Amino acid sequence: MFTLTFVAEQGEVKVATAPGRTVMEAAAAAGLALDAPCGGRGTCGKCLVRVISGELEPPGGEELDHLGQEELADGLRLGCQARLAGPATIGLVGVLAGRVLAEGEGRPAELAPGVRRVLLQVAEPTLEEGRGDLERVLAELGGVRVSPGLAVVRDLPAAVRAEGGRVSALVAGEELVGVSAGHHPRCLGMAVDVGTTTVVGYLLDLETGEQVGMASAMNEQAAFGADLISRIGHAAGGGGRELQQRIVGVINRLLEAACKQAGERVEDVCELTVVGNTCMHHLLLGLPVDNLAAMPFVPAATSALRLSAREIGLAAHPEARVYCFPNVAGFVGADAVAVMLASGFGHQDGLRVAIDIGTNGEVMAARGGEIVACSTAAGPAFEGAKISRGMRAAPGAIDRVRLTPQVQVHTIEGAPASGACGSGIIDAVAELVKLGVVEENGRMLSKEALPAWLPAPVAERLVEEEGKPAFLLAEGELGPVLLTARDVREAQLAKAALAAGLAVVLDELGAGAGEIEQLLLAGAFGNYIDRRSAVVIGLIPDLPEGRIKPVGNAAGAGARLGLLSVRMRAEAERLAAGVRHLELSSRPDFYDRFTDAMMLRPVPAQGQ
Amino acid sequence: MFTLTFVAEQGEVKVATAPGRTVMEAAAAAGLALDAPCGGRGTCGKCLVRVISGELEPPGGEELDHLGQEELADGLRLGCQARLAGPATIGLVGVLAGRVLAEGEGRPAELAPGVRRVLLQVAEPTLEEGRGDLERVLAELGGVRVSPGLAVVRDLPAAVRAEGGRVSALVAGEELVGVSAGHHPRCLGMAVDVGTTTVVGYLLDLETGEQVGMASAMNEQAAFGADLISRIGHAAGGGGRELQQRIVGVINRLLEAACKQAGERVEDVCELTVVGNTCMHHLLLGLPVDNLAAMPFVPAATSALRLSAREIGLAAHPEARVYCFPNVAGFVGADAVAVMLASGFGHQDGLRVAIDIGTNGEVMAARGGEIVACSTAAGPAFEGAKISRGMRAAPGAIDRVRLTPQVQVHTIEGAPASGACGSGIIDAVAELVKLGVVEENGRMLSKEALPAWLPAPVAERLVEEEGKPAFLLAEGELGPVLLTARDVREAQLAKAALAAGLAVVLDELGAGAGEIEQLLLAGAFGNYIDRRSAVVIGLIPDLPEGRIKPVGNAAGAGARLGLLSVRMRAEAERLAAGVRHLELSSRPDFYDRFTDAMMLRPVPAQGQ
Repeated sequence: MFTLTFVAEQGEVKVATAPGRTVMEAAAAAGLALDAPCGGRGTCGKCLVRVISGELEPPGGEELDHLGQEELADGLRLGCQARLAGPATIGLVGVLAGRVLAEGEGRPAELAPGVRRVLLQVAEPTLEEGRGDLERVLAELGGVRVSPGLAVVRDLPAAVRAEGGRVSALVAGEELVGVSAGHHPRCLGMAVDVGTTTVVGYLLDLETGEQVGMASAMNEQAAFGADLISRIGHAAGGGGRELQQRIVGVINRLLEAACKQAGERVEDVCELTVVGNTCMHHLLLGLPVDNLAAMPFVPAATSALRLSAREIGLAAHPEARVYCFPNVAGFVGADAVAVMLASGFGHQDGLRVAIDIGTNGEVMAARGGEIVACSTAAGPAFEGAKISRGMRAAPGAIDRVRLTPQVQVHTIEGAPASGACGSGIIDAVAELVKLGVVEENGRMLSKEALPAWLPAPVAERLVEEEGKPAFLLAEGELGPVLLTARDVREAQLAKAALAAGLAVVLDELGAGAGEIEQLLLAGAFGNYIDRRSAVVIGLIPDLPEGRIKPVGNAAGAGARLGLLSVRMRAEAERLAAGVRHLELSSRPDFYDRFTDAMMLRPVPAQGQ
Repeated sequence: MFTLTFVAEQGEVKVATAPGRTVMEAAAAAGLALDAPCGGRGTCGKCLVRVISGELEPPGGEELDHLGQEELADGLRLGCQARLAGPATIGLVGVLAGRVLAEGEGRPAELAPGVRRVLLQVAEPTLEEGRGDLERVLAELGGVRVSPGLAVVRDLPAAVRAEGGRVSALVAGEELVGVSAGHHPRCLGMAVDVGTTTVVGYLLDLETGEQVGMASAMNEQAAFGADLISRIGHAAGGGGRELQQRIVGVINRLLEAACKQAGERVEDVCELTVVGNTCMHHLLLGLPVDNLAAMPFVPAATSALRLSAREIGLAAHPEARVYCFPNVAGFVGADAVAVMLASGFGHQDGLRVAIDIGTNGEVMAARGGEIVACSTAAGPAFEGAKISRGMRAAPGAIDRVRLTPQVQVHTIEGAPASGACGSGIIDAVAELVKLGVVEENGRMLSKEALPAWLPAPVAERLVEEEGKPAFLLAEGELGPVLLTARDVREAQLAKAALAAGLAVVLDELGAGAGEIEQLLLAGAFGNYIDRRSAVVIGLIPDLPEGRIKPVGNAAGAGARLGLLSVRMRAEAERLAAGVRHLELSSRPDFYDRFTDAMMLRPVPAQGQ
């Protein structure tokens, strides 16, 4: 037995453990949960840890698959695979942001936040000098000028006097934006990823770059419609302010929760970065969204916007800054830009593709400095919408289906089945395609037409629903969970849209699928999806396994990078300005590719 | 008879007139009033006009006294003195600003305003490009970035669509600050001089630099006290917001009035510059003023502040900018900086002094790049406060008193006498000193002690008030208007404060009064005061007449310069930062000088 030390969000945690145990097992014994959507199988790559000191057993196959030489040299390991050899210190925080960056670009995330907090002892005023309170503060800062507007100066005289001249100045770039009484050294930031469904906030210490807290919540705008179109409709009908208040309220609760978790004060959160799709971005800022709903889908603004938290009612430091990532177009938003940033687009010669499947499916590809992006209407089906018993990835959702060698249906948390989520639907379709129950053209065979050699356990599940064939995934507590012929058609349409989008994007770069050096799957869906199933139905090309990587919430990682470094913001702006946006609906070649992609079969990765 | 053409604020006005008439007489016949506080005697120099074409009779003595060779070459003349010889075109607008500047610095007021309005035809959005409305506007502007904050972008999409892409962009520096629907070419600005008692707004066309309107009004904060201290008290008691609303309301009415006069729209006023004493500046901006009332009289801010009109509720263009001139200290405010700017401080080798008597008396002096300023408590007595029958310069105020060769008492507009204003009080004291009725030490002789040679009409007016001697200035409708012994004492204290301030300022520069090359008397008081009387009691040094110049509202002229050119703002900021502020109350030498200055006798201008 020896002692293993974890550097976790809550501080150092020590645990006695034994050689041969995995880091993840030791962490669990210490009450620390690593993120492991794949269940510790070494496939998702999400349980990254960093070895700070001590030696572990050398990395095995799964780790070598997921981690590059630089990353290994940097101490990165997969927590579920890395086995302990003796006393060591293992870091759990701030690992992912660094990783996605490293993976993207092979360069460190240089810490250069947009704001800094400076503790001052302001000189006593004298009768002779005549200088104002503001000027005595500025004199201590040297070279910093006052930000336009009155917010800074109104409360400054009281702040300067409250604690005998001890103040904390908030400086953004070279502008003084706030002065508060007393010495408050903490300078925190929150990177916010506003999704249509969920909102995630990452709390970072802007002096060390460490992530110190995290919180997520449902986007309460969902009360006005799950999808973008109904929210745009609500906003157009005068509900814009209401939608804005909902999302601001959610972010304020994330701020509170993450700060409570980290033992920090919300008023020490001095900057926020925000990513989200163009519609979420506009609703948060109170910008009109009506033009997003109709051709030609024009955003109010695509540039990066800078504002104060006060302007939209965010409950952070009273003068906290907000940096909103740039959008590319109406349906390629700031979240896509953040994904490209985190994925190191524009920094590698090889062909790199990122696919982010959320409410929409964004496909982005870069080769050298050439970057192309498009949005496809692939999302809803994969999020469970339009599927008869579809549901989001929640307890009771069928997320894994195997029909060979035997029927296996797995639900999230092992709860009784109540529906199927995206990864389960793709698994089911892929398995049915492999067995010939669903033909390449998407037609589900009727019970009578089934091949004789089909294993009985599978054949038994072929049923009829309203006169059409359907496959019984599970009996379920609330009734049978069926995958109907119509569901297969919906999945097929979604798959075709995404695959056609990828094909058009590759055509635009003059590349074939086989040239893809890295295919990054962003978003929760990218983590949960079974890559082999996705390849079987042609959702993603048939690339060697090592080239496909789930990268988790890359949009959130991009938002964190922007929070840590203004150079990353400049890069995000260059990416947004430089990306060639393809509006698929106006391109005849998209419809050709779409028709091709309707076939449920692997996309051969020719020409490697 | 011939036709004379005036270029006036309301446009061209023609009038038939005859040779030998003065410009002022012809203007009056045309319904145009020239500013002539001295009543057309050629002493105040305020009725400046500019000969645009045609010949006038050559300038006479008063004109040669007031106008330099450069000014005459530039076509400047005194309207009350210049006589017509034949057809001519005479400009009445934009003359004073140009004059004060020219007088100050001998260089043109280069037009470089802080804002510009750009008329755009924004390109139609296309499905392919994906750019937002904001970006299509920015693309037309080239090199202009969006201002931080959301104000610009919120209404931009609607503005772009309202008239098929025809918009007017408001650009401040290199930032887009506003976009409004339709083509509105006018870009106006208002220079506002916020006095404790009166507020003046000058409406300027920022494309031509011409003054197109002007309005003035009482400062309605007076409802909470005539003086600064009572207003500070009201603000400290929670009335700050109320005081702010009052002054904002006044400025909004000036905007309306001046725009109506000029036939312009208030929403075309795109920028304002503001000058005023430090307290007025703070109250307008809603900054705390409590520290201004107690030692060491610390302002909240002395730097130049930039804000949007919206922030304080000014009813101009919704995104109009506001530039607030820098202050120097608690009692040397932005108005003093504006006076220094308009007076060309820092641009001349010779010794130049400016005195601005308002609520306080500010004394500023410059020699080469060395600039010194102080504030003295000289104002109230000269504004009529503390004087038993004192009043402001209004109809019925005694403004001129002559006792030799005969008793002459003049009231403003010839109305029945109801009190005495500053110029009348100084005249009266000076005349009484000349006759020996008031001794150099300020003591007023009793009726019994009067010299026998005193003319009877004067001696008759010596009366008693509560057992002390007093001089009957006029019978008045509401009772006798007396100048009491106590009034003389008040005037003497005020005079001593101002003269001592000037002496300390000159000492600081190592200069004697005789070295003053130009003594500029700013403010209304400087226009109305009889310079000979002021010299007699030692209020100002005994300089050759040509060296003393009333320059009218120099603070307002400075505000106009700042409105016309951002370089002037930079210069104002350099002046404010470079001026050496003398806090008289902490200087022993001030009390020495004050004691000297108590004597009511001329200050010899030695060492010329």
